[in-house]
Amino acid sequence: MRRIASLGAAVALMAAAAAFVLPGSGHADQAVSVTKIPDGYRDWKLVSVAHEAGPLNDIRAILGNDAAIKAYRDKTLPFPDGAIVARIAWKYVPSEENNKVFGREQSWVAGDPPEWYLQFMVKDSKKYAATGGWGYAQFDKDGKPAPDAKLATCYPCHEPIQSRDFVFTRYTP
Amino acid sequence: MRRIASLGAAVALMAAAAAFVLPGSGHADQAVSVTKIPDGYRDWKLVSVAHEAGPLNDIRAILGNDAAIKAYRDKTLPFPDGAIVARIAWKYVPSEENNKVFGREQSWVAGDPPEWYLQFMVKDSKKYAATGGWGYAQFDKDGKPAPDAKLATCYPCHEPIQSRDFVFTRYTP
Repeated sequence: MRRIASLGAAVALMAAAAAFVLPGSGHADQAVSVTKIPDGYRDWKLVSVAHEAGPLNDIRAILGNDAAIKAYRDKTLPFPDGAIVARIAWKYVPSEENNKVFGREQSWVAGDPPEWYLQFMVKDSKKYAATGGWGYAQFDKDGKPAPDAKLATCYPCHEPIQSRDFVFTRYTP
Repeated sequence: MRRIASLGAAVALMAAAAAFVLPGSGHADQAVSVTKIPDGYRDWKLVSVAHEAGPLNDIRAILGNDAAIKAYRDKTLPFPDGAIVARIAWKYVPSEENNKVFGREQSWVAGDPPEWYLQFMVKDSKKYAATGGWGYAQFDKDGKPAPDAKLATCYPCHEPIQSRDFVFTRYTP
């Protein structure tokens, strides 16, 4: 009986310890992921646009909340805590409607959401210190967050762009 | 002296008459162009994005002022008076920086402004009745408006899309 109680206590202790180091708990010594879609992101201002060919084959808009846009426009680096950069992707599809008017195959537009529809970088220099001050988030077309293993691949790709505070997209006026 | 006074009166009358039929005066029986860049357009919300290949070879964002975005989101047609749709184009350029990280040629981004940088459609069903209720505007990279002859080519291209109130771009959530 005492053995079972001890085991129970040990499990509880382990659970508490695990909770303490879980992503999102605020430890600065590990990558922490973002699991909630930031409110109102679809109303944010435009940073720029891009097309990723290859396996992604999407066309995308990069938006920023007010803090991010201000930093971009003022050319202030690093981005301040609270800045969030959003990336919305759509399938890259030809527009038959537009091509008919143009009289040639020239128009590519945004189609349905692809599997990985939304990405965010959330700046919190303390909370996300282990990943350059940014928390990374990715959501599928149903709004389901990406698993931590997937998000763990974000920062290594962004590291080469440390000189621009890890943000690839440049603001285009 | 009386002759000079009469001439002066005649000139003044002609000037008044000319002002009355100049573009922008509100006559519904002629195409009227927009010659001023709408204030604050770069802060407007995103409608969608597109890539035009061929001679244009640009990547573009379509933005809307609040009235346009509300109509898009509510699926209200025709667009209300006051709605403005903006199109910003940038040169379609490969990103060597991004490609280096991806390890392949896949990333196309927004470069410098092309010759015809900005376009707008301004809804005023009375003022622009002759062109489907929309005034068309185009500005080069230095902010100079397009000549009327160029703007006269806008509406004929938009006519086929009358079922969506002459606006090609669909809103992508």
